[in-house]
Amino acid sequence: MKYLRYRKDGAVCFGILEGKTVTKLDGDYIQGSVNKLEESFPLGEVQILPPALPGQLIAIGLNYELHAEETGKPIPEEPMMFMASPTAVIGEGDTIQLPNRDHRIDYEAELVIVIGKEAKNLSRENALDHVFGYTCGNDVSDRHLQKKDGQFTRAKSFATYKPLGPVIETDLDPNHVSIKSVVNGEAKQDSNTNDLIHDIEQLLVKVTEVMTLNPGDVIYTGTPSGVGPLSPGDKVVVEVEGIGKLTNKVEG
Amino acid sequence: MKYLRYRKDGAVCFGILEGKTVTKLDGDYIQGSVNKLEESFPLGEVQILPPALPGQLIAIGLNYELHAEETGKPIPEEPMMFMASPTAVIGEGDTIQLPNRDHRIDYEAELVIVIGKEAKNLSRENALDHVFGYTCGNDVSDRHLQKKDGQFTRAKSFATYKPLGPVIETDLDPNHVSIKSVVNGEAKQDSNTNDLIHDIEQLLVKVTEVMTLNPGDVIYTGTPSGVGPLSPGDKVVVEVEGIGKLTNKVEG
Repeated sequence: MKYLRYRKDGAVCFGILEGKTVTKLDGDYIQGSVNKLEESFPLGEVQILPPALPGQLIAIGLNYELHAEETGKPIPEEPMMFMASPTAVIGEGDTIQLPNRDHRIDYEAELVIVIGKEAKNLSRENALDHVFGYTCGNDVSDRHLQKKDGQFTRAKSFATYKPLGPVIETDLDPNHVSIKSVVNGEAKQDSNTNDLIHDIEQLLVKVTEVMTLNPGDVIYTGTPSGVGPLSPGDKVVVEVEGIGKLTNKVEG
Repeated sequence: MKYLRYRKDGAVCFGILEGKTVTKLDGDYIQGSVNKLEESFPLGEVQILPPALPGQLIAIGLNYELHAEETGKPIPEEPMMFMASPTAVIGEGDTIQLPNRDHRIDYEAELVIVIGKEAKNLSRENALDHVFGYTCGNDVSDRHLQKKDGQFTRAKSFATYKPLGPVIETDLDPNHVSIKSVVNGEAKQDSNTNDLIHDIEQLLVKVTEVMTLNPGDVIYTGTPSGVGPLSPGDKVVVEVEGIGKLTNKVEG
């Protein structure tokens, strides 16, 4: 099922998407409100919002072999985790703003895990039971600051640097879906999550070995090879098979 | 004024501390509830809780010259920021649990900023207006994982690794207070925040250049030289002049 948050007539609502039809739900699906109301309308009539408002935004570095190669870094033996500010999240159709136009700022297509149940010390066997679903993310990254700081938080936390959406798909095999990015109509990244070095279960096990995840928290699972710079005027699309397309314009 | 959260008779309350007397407030001081009720009792009758429950926990690396020297790292030209999980926060008197006993795990005494008002793109001039107050923090750090990962988030986010408290002091000159740590009665760190490379205003400016801070969010401002390992059975005290002592035992 595809879940989405949206704004219509000024109100923030939760809904499901079937084909091009949105049906309103009785509340926040991440809190368990998944009952359909008698209100449906065409997708074109709503403004799509980020499908989750994470309390914690965890991201994984160097989780595809070819991407580790293109950065010249060794493959991490364990998932390399960092955090970025949830205040950087924007949704489908929102604009990525580049405050440091003289820096190289890259797109990074990623599959994103959305947590459904409080999760601590998960095992491979029960890990996926704590997932609400999956969405697309763009882990926009200021390469200049990433290198300068060593720590990734600043480079990846500027307002608008974490596009998320458009919908959360609950029926997905997260370890076997294609993942792509397209900039101005040109294919840039083209991979499959079966190339993840640390798969979805492993990420959930390793992150929750450390911290407690709460409903709505998200894990950006890493980006495949083919990253590259964004410039003002660009249109960047992240597409994950089974979920959909996350499209954002860039302004500088 | 010294503000604290505490538990008494099973209920979580907010109060002020005058001498050794706690007086209950009408609600959460960080949300503006600072009216005294007619209930006072000795400090010894309450269980002190972390004085804030941050949504975001930001920390600054290498912000004292002598500590940068002892780690062998160059002094960062700009504040080096990272994030840790707020689910690691514990309070005065709580126990630091060491899950990886074969790793070196260090104490790090820090002055912590507690945000009072939504803060974005602050200037040096208005920065302190957005601070609620200051408390003590211990940025407990797994050195093995910190080195292995490069990113600091995992090494510093294990449950119980972020002691915070005991109280928030609102009347403090944060750039001129002594800061100490004591382990098993032995002085370890002994410095003053006037040795901060990037002072409190600068940290607020640089962090909010990137992300929005919300009331209750905290910034651990960096640790002075003299860090060292913790072992099961240790008692570690962080003391900041004008605030008080944050004491935690260690179990492994």
